[in-house]
Amino acid sequence: MKFLNLFLLAIPVSIFFHLADSSPILAFLTACLSIIPLSGYMGKATEEIAIYVGPSIGGLLNATFGNAAELIITLFALKSGLVEVVKASITGSIIGNLLLVLGLSMLLGGFKFKTQKFNRAAAGMHTSMLLLAVTGLIIPAVFLNNHSNPAAEPLSLGVAAVLILIYLLSLLFSLHTHKDVFRPSQEHSGTPQWTRLKALLILLAATIFVVIESEFLVSGIEPVVNTLGISELFIGVIIIPIIGNAAEHTTSVMMALKNKMEISLEIAIGSSTQIALFVAPLLVFIGYLSGHPIDLLFTSYELVVIILGTVITAIISMDGRSNWLEGAQLLASYVIMAIAFLFV
Amino acid sequence: MKFLNLFLLAIPVSIFFHLADSSPILAFLTACLSIIPLSGYMGKATEEIAIYVGPSIGGLLNATFGNAAELIITLFALKSGLVEVVKASITGSIIGNLLLVLGLSMLLGGFKFKTQKFNRAAAGMHTSMLLLAVTGLIIPAVFLNNHSNPAAEPLSLGVAAVLILIYLLSLLFSLHTHKDVFRPSQEHSGTPQWTRLKALLILLAATIFVVIESEFLVSGIEPVVNTLGISELFIGVIIIPIIGNAAEHTTSVMMALKNKMEISLEIAIGSSTQIALFVAPLLVFIGYLSGHPIDLLFTSYELVVIILGTVITAIISMDGRSNWLEGAQLLASYVIMAIAFLFV
Amino acid sequence: MKFLNLFLLAIPVSIFFHLADSSPILAFLTACLSIIPLSGYMGKATEEIAIYVGPSIGGLLNATFGNAAELIITLFALKSGLVEVVKASITGSIIGNLLLVLGLSMLLGGFKFKTQKFNRAAAGMHTSMLLLAVTGLIIPAVFLNNHSNPAAEPLSLGVAAVLILIYLLSLLFSLHTHKDVFRPSQEHSGTPQWTRLKALLILLAATIFVVIESEFLVSGIEPVVNTLGISELFIGVIIIPIIGNAAEHTTSVMMALKNKMEISLEIAIGSSTQIALFVAPLLVFIGYLSGHPIDLLFTSYELVVIILGTVITAIISMDGRSNWLEGAQLLASYVIMAIAFLFV
Repeated sequence: MKFLNLFLLAIPVSIFFHLADSSPILAFLTACLSIIPLSGYMGKATEEIAIYVGPSIGGLLNATFGNAAELIITLFALKSGLVEVVKASITGSIIGNLLLVLGLSMLLGGFKFKTQKFNRAAAGMHTSMLLLAVTGLIIPAVFLNNHSNPAAEPLSLGVAAVLILIYLLSLLFSLHTHKDVFRPSQEHSGTPQWTRLKALLILLAATIFVVIESEFLVSGIEPVVNTLGISELFIGVIIIPIIGNAAEHTTSVMMALKNKMEISLEIAIGSSTQIALFVAPLLVFIGYLSGHPIDLLFTSYELVVIILGTVITAIISMDGRSNWLEGAQLLASYVIMAIAFLFV
Repeated sequence: MKFLNLFLLAIPVSIFFHLADSSPILAFLTACLSIIPLSGYMGKATEEIAIYVGPSIGGLLNATFGNAAELIITLFALKSGLVEVVKASITGSIIGNLLLVLGLSMLLGGFKFKTQKFNRAAAGMHTSMLLLAVTGLIIPAVFLNNHSNPAAEPLSLGVAAVLILIYLLSLLFSLHTHKDVFRPSQEHSGTPQWTRLKALLILLAATIFVVIESEFLVSGIEPVVNTLGISELFIGVIIIPIIGNAAEHTTSVMMALKNKMEISLEIAIGSSTQIALFVAPLLVFIGYLSGHPIDLLFTSYELVVIILGTVITAIISMDGRSNWLEGAQLLASYVIMAIAFLFV
Repeated sequence: MKFLNLFLLAIPVSIFFHLADSSPILAFLTACLSIIPLSGYMGKATEEIAIYVGPSIGGLLNATFGNAAELIITLFALKSGLVEVVKASITGSIIGNLLLVLGLSMLLGGFKFKTQKFNRAAAGMHTSMLLLAVTGLIIPAVFLNNHSNPAAEPLSLGVAAVLILIYLLSLLFSLHTHKDVFRPSQEHSGTPQWTRLKALLILLAATIFVVIESEFLVSGIEPVVNTLGISELFIGVIIIPIIGNAAEHTTSVMMALKNKMEISLEIAIGSSTQIALFVAPLLVFIGYLSGHPIDLLFTSYELVVIILGTVITAIISMDGRSNWLEGAQLLASYVIMAIAFLFV
């Protein structure tokens, strides 16, 4: 993870390009680069604080702020009225975590270990959670064909409420009533490496910079679309999720290389579930309250990749074993989808 | 189950409202209430008779008349030309049994027992049966986009014939060649509680009243739609299946509370399968012969909820274990679907 | 398998009808019949040669030429501009192998043995491969609604490249890094029954006749469509795959009757995977290079049957056991689909 720190150098550069107002595309690119280590520091600092406050509140902290960097980027996109980018990045986070992160982890882990095993019960729990989330994301789009339908807002709010409720119940389940099923997640707690103060200060600094860079990134989207000919959809589905999750990707792969596939799985599938059950509904509520309404009516492209990504991951993780070919299959699915999003 | 007997008082009230011809809505509501215990008595009496005639013919009886109350309601709806209500109630029975009944059973059972186990082989058998049924319900709608297609009738009849054939083969399988796989179902036979005559008389009386109340219910649908603004689709998908299956719901939950999750599963998934493989095709044939034709072309809303309901149930039941969160997930899926049907 | 040799008599008859130029329909029918044993000899000869050249190259040979007869027929169809027939026969081969071949094997094997077991790991590997293939076939059609979209060609080529790459990786996996997972496949190697020369000569002769008969078959499609009123779609989805795979069907059923369900499964699912990951992408490349372009945009009918066929097979094979009812379920799904294709 240490080489990612190099990207911190992109922070001053992006600020320069933004202030100089000469090249929004370079500001966009450097902002992208800088967010990679920043989101990593946000995650690491949250985990450290979580250790100090104990497993229950700590688990809650991790669960709530695990995707904070991404939430900040999407909030800025929402504020700028880039509703489609927001929904695309939700889609992209889900398939990115399921196919790219898990695929890379299984592939590289599989090069080192012939077969890697993990707890089927935990995998099954994640999978059924994901399916429920997918149900919540599919139903509104299928029932109301277009956004101008007056029922789009109340239906989205209703579905969002159910999804958040289930998310809270799942926290109760994994942190309280059935915490033994998710034992492996405690492994990456252990003893803190930072002092309480250091963790808080780093979290604060990283968050401030993420906010700044997110604004640069979002204000660079339109110039990038106009100049480079990349679609908003592609930026939302492929680029933003890769940036926002890069740090987690690294951790997941490192765990796979240590033969702790269980933790890789939890990071990848858990992060997808969190996006679908917590971040997406939260955006609906924030959008509604802040006057930048966003509904849950995804495009048919998005629905198809979410469904396929979920089903493939479910089938591959269901047997509690993985190998390099399964990793390659997940990656191939991701590449096929990415190519298709390029051509839309 | 005993408190449901109170609803029997709704019988005279519904008759009064119907004869008075003043309030079709109140007649509808009281008819709904009265059908709840009546369908329970039909089911109970059928089971009692099944014990007297021995396991083979008894199993056949249970399998054929298990959803008799619902069949009667839908036949009256069909006679009144409410074809969409009939198809909606088929959809609703499938998702109601899979998500509402099974969800409630797993939730309440899971509050009492941390993890409940059941036979994976039987669950797998039910699931693949369900998938086949779903195939039969999806294919006609996808291949023929609209009902005015002249092929809608012959295709529906052909598919219905295949589905009923497979249903008969599945009876041969579970009652004859592989009866040991479904052993648990024998547990709720045991010794009869009623005499043969009592069982027959109760079956007769309950059936007569169900017929009467079904007519009240069906003739109340139009006034309810016009006055209360609830759609026919919602009545068909949500209300009718809840009434028609209420007694079974109670039994399924009670079995879960006794930690007999296997029987809960059999009631819930078995009932869905029966609706899809036997009741739906039977309605196609009866409709064809009686001059009130009904095809198997479901709406895209119905198809999506049937598919999602089946896949979620398959994934959740595949590991042979359940807990309260899985129950909550099934219920949440049902609630999301119900909200969506409200807004269509 | 020996009685299939009788169909070799159809070779001279088909040549006569073709040269006489009087009855293209009879030429079509006799060509169909003659291809059944010929494709069987191609497969058998390939297997024999594979034994001589050793497991690695032999496995490669089997994997590459396993569906050679079908590839030849579709190449002729492609040359004649029957692009829809080609895509329909890809669809038909996939569902034919999954539902018809596997269904028949499980049904007949299940009549003889109450429960048949097979290796879940291998079944799971095939299933996830199949899902990936299905992803590659679904994505282009969903993202680009119609063939006139200029992106249809580059997207199809890109997806085809990814699919072939994964196919090659899967060969590396099953023949090299994880060959122990697929142990059963070695069982039908054993000692060769033919000499090297005999095998080569038979392969050569069978291939030449398949080429000739394929031309007769393809040139008879139009007259058959015009005279008998069967659609091109039906010929492509149902008739061509049955002819092209008849020999494999026989082998698969025979293995099931010997209680070697593992080999049946490998033949059926493996053949489907090969069609989707190797034959279909190869056709895209050959079509592109030869100026008879073909894209991967399947119709919604085809997508639905491919998806349903894959999911049903996945669910049924996931528990590592089969019985006659599961076979009947697969067959029933096939029959429902075939009826639907008749009516389109």
